[in-house]
Amino acid sequence: MLKVAVVGATGYTGIEIVKILLDHPGVEIVSLTAKVDSPISLGAEFPELAGRIDLEVDNLQVEKVCSLADFVFLALPHTVSMRFAPAFLAAGKKVVDLSADYRFRDAAVFSRWYETPHLDPAGAAEAVYGLPEIYRDPIVKARLIANPGCYPTGTILGVYPALKEGLVDGERIIVDAKTGVTGAGRKPSLAFLFPEVNGNFRAYSLGAHKHTPEMEVILAEAAGRKTMVEFAPHLLPVNRGILGTIYLDLLREVSEEEIGRIYRSYWGKEPFVDLCPPGRLPQLREVVGTNVCRIGLKVNPRTRRLLVVTAIDNLLKGAAGQAVQNMNLMSGFAEDSGLPKLGRVGG
Amino acid sequence: MLKVAVVGATGYTGIEIVKILLDHPGVEIVSLTAKVDSPISLGAEFPELAGRIDLEVDNLQVEKVCSLADFVFLALPHTVSMRFAPAFLAAGKKVVDLSADYRFRDAAVFSRWYETPHLDPAGAAEAVYGLPEIYRDPIVKARLIANPGCYPTGTILGVYPALKEGLVDGERIIVDAKTGVTGAGRKPSLAFLFPEVNGNFRAYSLGAHKHTPEMEVILAEAAGRKTMVEFAPHLLPVNRGILGTIYLDLLREVSEEEIGRIYRSYWGKEPFVDLCPPGRLPQLREVVGTNVCRIGLKVNPRTRRLLVVTAIDNLLKGAAGQAVQNMNLMSGFAEDSGLPKLGRVGG
Amino acid sequence: MLKVAVVGATGYTGIEIVKILLDHPGVEIVSLTAKVDSPISLGAEFPELAGRIDLEVDNLQVEKVCSLADFVFLALPHTVSMRFAPAFLAAGKKVVDLSADYRFRDAAVFSRWYETPHLDPAGAAEAVYGLPEIYRDPIVKARLIANPGCYPTGTILGVYPALKEGLVDGERIIVDAKTGVTGAGRKPSLAFLFPEVNGNFRAYSLGAHKHTPEMEVILAEAAGRKTMVEFAPHLLPVNRGILGTIYLDLLREVSEEEIGRIYRSYWGKEPFVDLCPPGRLPQLREVVGTNVCRIGLKVNPRTRRLLVVTAIDNLLKGAAGQAVQNMNLMSGFAEDSGLPKLGRVGG
Amino acid sequence: MLKVAVVGATGYTGIEIVKILLDHPGVEIVSLTAKVDSPISLGAEFPELAGRIDLEVDNLQVEKVCSLADFVFLALPHTVSMRFAPAFLAAGKKVVDLSADYRFRDAAVFSRWYETPHLDPAGAAEAVYGLPEIYRDPIVKARLIANPGCYPTGTILGVYPALKEGLVDGERIIVDAKTGVTGAGRKPSLAFLFPEVNGNFRAYSLGAHKHTPEMEVILAEAAGRKTMVEFAPHLLPVNRGILGTIYLDLLREVSEEEIGRIYRSYWGKEPFVDLCPPGRLPQLREVVGTNVCRIGLKVNPRTRRLLVVTAIDNLLKGAAGQAVQNMNLMSGFAEDSGLPKLGRVGG
Repeated sequence: MLKVAVVGATGYTGIEIVKILLDHPGVEIVSLTAKVDSPISLGAEFPELAGRIDLEVDNLQVEKVCSLADFVFLALPHTVSMRFAPAFLAAGKKVVDLSADYRFRDAAVFSRWYETPHLDPAGAAEAVYGLPEIYRDPIVKARLIANPGCYPTGTILGVYPALKEGLVDGERIIVDAKTGVTGAGRKPSLAFLFPEVNGNFRAYSLGAHKHTPEMEVILAEAAGRKTMVEFAPHLLPVNRGILGTIYLDLLREVSEEEIGRIYRSYWGKEPFVDLCPPGRLPQLREVVGTNVCRIGLKVNPRTRRLLVVTAIDNLLKGAAGQAVQNMNLMSGFAEDSGLPKLGRVGG
Repeated sequence: MLKVAVVGATGYTGIEIVKILLDHPGVEIVSLTAKVDSPISLGAEFPELAGRIDLEVDNLQVEKVCSLADFVFLALPHTVSMRFAPAFLAAGKKVVDLSADYRFRDAAVFSRWYETPHLDPAGAAEAVYGLPEIYRDPIVKARLIANPGCYPTGTILGVYPALKEGLVDGERIIVDAKTGVTGAGRKPSLAFLFPEVNGNFRAYSLGAHKHTPEMEVILAEAAGRKTMVEFAPHLLPVNRGILGTIYLDLLREVSEEEIGRIYRSYWGKEPFVDLCPPGRLPQLREVVGTNVCRIGLKVNPRTRRLLVVTAIDNLLKGAAGQAVQNMNLMSGFAEDSGLPKLGRVGG
Repeated sequence: MLKVAVVGATGYTGIEIVKILLDHPGVEIVSLTAKVDSPISLGAEFPELAGRIDLEVDNLQVEKVCSLADFVFLALPHTVSMRFAPAFLAAGKKVVDLSADYRFRDAAVFSRWYETPHLDPAGAAEAVYGLPEIYRDPIVKARLIANPGCYPTGTILGVYPALKEGLVDGERIIVDAKTGVTGAGRKPSLAFLFPEVNGNFRAYSLGAHKHTPEMEVILAEAAGRKTMVEFAPHLLPVNRGILGTIYLDLLREVSEEEIGRIYRSYWGKEPFVDLCPPGRLPQLREVVGTNVCRIGLKVNPRTRRLLVVTAIDNLLKGAAGQAVQNMNLMSGFAEDSGLPKLGRVGG
Repeated sequence: MLKVAVVGATGYTGIEIVKILLDHPGVEIVSLTAKVDSPISLGAEFPELAGRIDLEVDNLQVEKVCSLADFVFLALPHTVSMRFAPAFLAAGKKVVDLSADYRFRDAAVFSRWYETPHLDPAGAAEAVYGLPEIYRDPIVKARLIANPGCYPTGTILGVYPALKEGLVDGERIIVDAKTGVTGAGRKPSLAFLFPEVNGNFRAYSLGAHKHTPEMEVILAEAAGRKTMVEFAPHLLPVNRGILGTIYLDLLREVSEEEIGRIYRSYWGKEPFVDLCPPGRLPQLREVVGTNVCRIGLKVNPRTRRLLVVTAIDNLLKGAAGQAVQNMNLMSGFAEDSGLPKLGRVGG
């Protein structure tokens, strides 16, 4: 059994990792930490877990975690992970970091968009971007994974085949994305109170969201093309899920059939990418509660554009699920071990 | 024009008073206060009000408010109102207090349930309970109104006729009530984050909610009967509205027709109480956005019970709307001036 | 592998059975039927199932189903199941019927409340009420199971221990229950359109809901006490889940500790009943997506009542999950095989 | 008092017209029609209107309506209005048609997109497009108004100033719009059941929505520029409101300040267009329940685009409210008579 620690266990992402691991046949959770005033029982905070897991949640002590665990998930805020990751690596642990800290090989890009110096440029240079559909081989060998952002995951999977094949203009990508509220985290807040969100819908961070360079850098590197992304995120009155509508300028005439064949040649065998049948588009509820990214394709010959719609569960394929998918690859488990493919939309 | 101050203007209740008063033909808002770090523009916080009202919102200074306003709404937390109300009264202002501080003539009852000494027992003894359907005459003459709690408003209007007529057992009243989330106030919070409430439903404060003695005392006093209320509040995933299902033991056989006649004799001419036609029950959406309390009646001859369902908008008839209804009575306006009777369910 | 047919596969309950069975290690789905104009692909209607199951859905032909399957789930409307169940039994199949048709041993009770003659009184007399927590032994040996109604499941589990022990008055039971909208079924409708339900809340069928006699008859039979239930169902703006608040008159003084001990002695070892720790009550989101019934207990010494709050997922423990739990018992599988205990609240 | 008929009174749009008119000081509703089996009471269908209006709703008989009313709202499905409008005009009535039938001066464009011959090309040529902010003068003199579509209203108000001033490329307009569910109408349906929409989000009709040519034709005509619109509508889990995010390619460098000045020069004095202050974007809840269109502007110098976000209530400024705004102009009332500017988000 792989001994696993979850650092940052009481956020929406951390608790989702815990839930997945509880159903994982090859894993034992040995350590849970979070910023707490005094140690708490996980079951007191999340009553549905009472009786399922007995660990106390205490503040992070790196040495203690190192003495217990062989594999560490860092579900920490941006700029906090890089303060702790080096110590875990130095102690020989494998790490999946769910923050943005290690997503840019070039620490200067991180510094520019996150407006803070990078504390571990060597780690940034070493880390592998944890999108298995593109970087599976290096992930298998990695000791430090930068788990992708929620928005970039859906966007990159939706754009990459068309971009790589030279079908669309990489410098005119428009991503209009809509996320559920768990994307904003689990902390006291006025802006995300129920009455502020329910019955409401809004755009935010137009032209300024920090996931923009992540999309641009990874797509450019992976596809070998210049990129420029107009990224417009919006907040949906739902708990979970991201649906992105992506507008791509076609560089040549192409039929939906041909586009479909191309995407199938890229993603057809992927366990966690589903392509909609021709004429269908994905809906949020088809992916909520699953680790699946669903993609639908529409060619508009009138405007000479390819429209791509992608849907993921922001907490699963967009965070915790993908993190476990990476753990599975790094640790020799079946890639889909413990990961749900069918959901049950609640609400 | 009546010069009005709203103390506590940025909560859900305070802003609702402001919105009503902006449509009121006889009122001028002259002062808005709230706990703020520095003065803010109301339109910056509530953009839909920008251009409609230019007042700054600053911290409460009693003397300044007294120099500007003749009528004061106190939309403050419990135990805070009683620190300020006496000064406004002493300055000759009329006051509608929306907290619980003045709802109990007997300050000892307040102290017992709210677990704090009362700072103004004389005010408590003087204040009139602001439920116009029962206390209209004293309200007209009052200078200090204790605006009723949201839950008691619907409950008292639903129970009073049957209790007063001796049809039901006052000591076996059960009130199963369900409220929208604005009832919890507008302040940073983990428990009322969208993902904690959406798709969820829960009971809270069973047997311990502070509105229990308010229902018991007012019903007992008004109907001249002994009372005991089992009150079970629940949290609905909606923004606004309270629906209460009330279980009453019948003391004698009675038909729905007779009950209907009795309730019409009490509420038939009330501008803000609507009785459902026979066989119909109220729905939340029929009252959301209005100052109306709707009441439906069902006799179950098998169990010998009268079931009463009442619905109000917790921010209107349950708070701000009723407060303005009281202001109208106290100031010689038409009782329904500025108060909406038709809503538009958003969401 | 057990060969299973789902009759009525495209309703909310039928599709839920399919989803559970797809994750069940000992089952093969061999037949899906529904009322269709012409055969349809399940994946066309439910795209998230495309690629997971290849069966066509066609109209029910009993002989064809009998030639393929050994175990049959009937997810049909009330009064329809009893037209087909006898033929499946005669062919030697085991049957779990999710309608109300076989829930009353005495077919006359069924006829009175459902206002139609019973077509299979012998089947009604033979069928076992499929609540494993009370009827596990007869279920194991049964060939025809009447799967309990969604409301009765939560109510009976919440009331039975106190009633059986003689702690509460069985003739004064009040059940105020609130259900998600999937309880109304998956068919074109005006009353259950999104804008008619969202932001709304309402009571319905007060004193007249057909689950009332089911609660009364089963509780009376199981506990050996006279019963009378005041049952008031309500419609919540959520997809899934039922939360019931149950009011019971205590016949003697009892502490919460003692009540807790009693309930633990009944349900402590049940795989799908969770008792909340003292002072806690269940929330809907703790059970949505699971086959678990959670129960919270509150004694109000002031009113001498025991309040019981129970929560289930209406499609799982309230229907499809319980049906599979029964199949597991009838077929020698582990009782919890394929059944989820941890959910992910969507919405 | 203007005598008004509402043809199609029981849909979401029709009932909204009725609610507005009930608060309108210069109007008397004299006739309500809808497709009904037999005459119904409006208050039986919409209980909150019981006691507010006594008219029966019966099937449309043109002559009867003509004998009662001087002004007619046609809230009918597309292709139905043009069967009746000529008769009302011939009888000397003024008509606001809320369908698409008269929105295209060139009936051939209508025929192409709506795939049916136009029955009244002369009416189409005469009708005035009822967007007061652009066509106020001809509206005042018109006898037949084509009330704009919900999506085009927000889009045209958001794009027109920039396009007219030659700041942006009219042939590369992208409109990513999101609507509430009332936009789908009030009729029995599977796709719009609560559990199918709640917790869900989806795109539909990509590249094929019939509002596309309406945006293109009106913008081209009004701004005197060539246009091509990529229009992607989506379905939000909210009752009301449309938020559109519009991507425009800038033809020259321009600052947000300059753009703001330009938009203010167009819309600064409009009673129902609100421009957000610099740095702010509109939210749905700011317009739900109002006849206001709110517009926010964002220049992205990195991508050389102007992003425009517009928000309206689809039933008010997007349909019924704008229809009454047109009636006010055609009938000599104050333009804002009866029309709400402040909402109360329910939900």
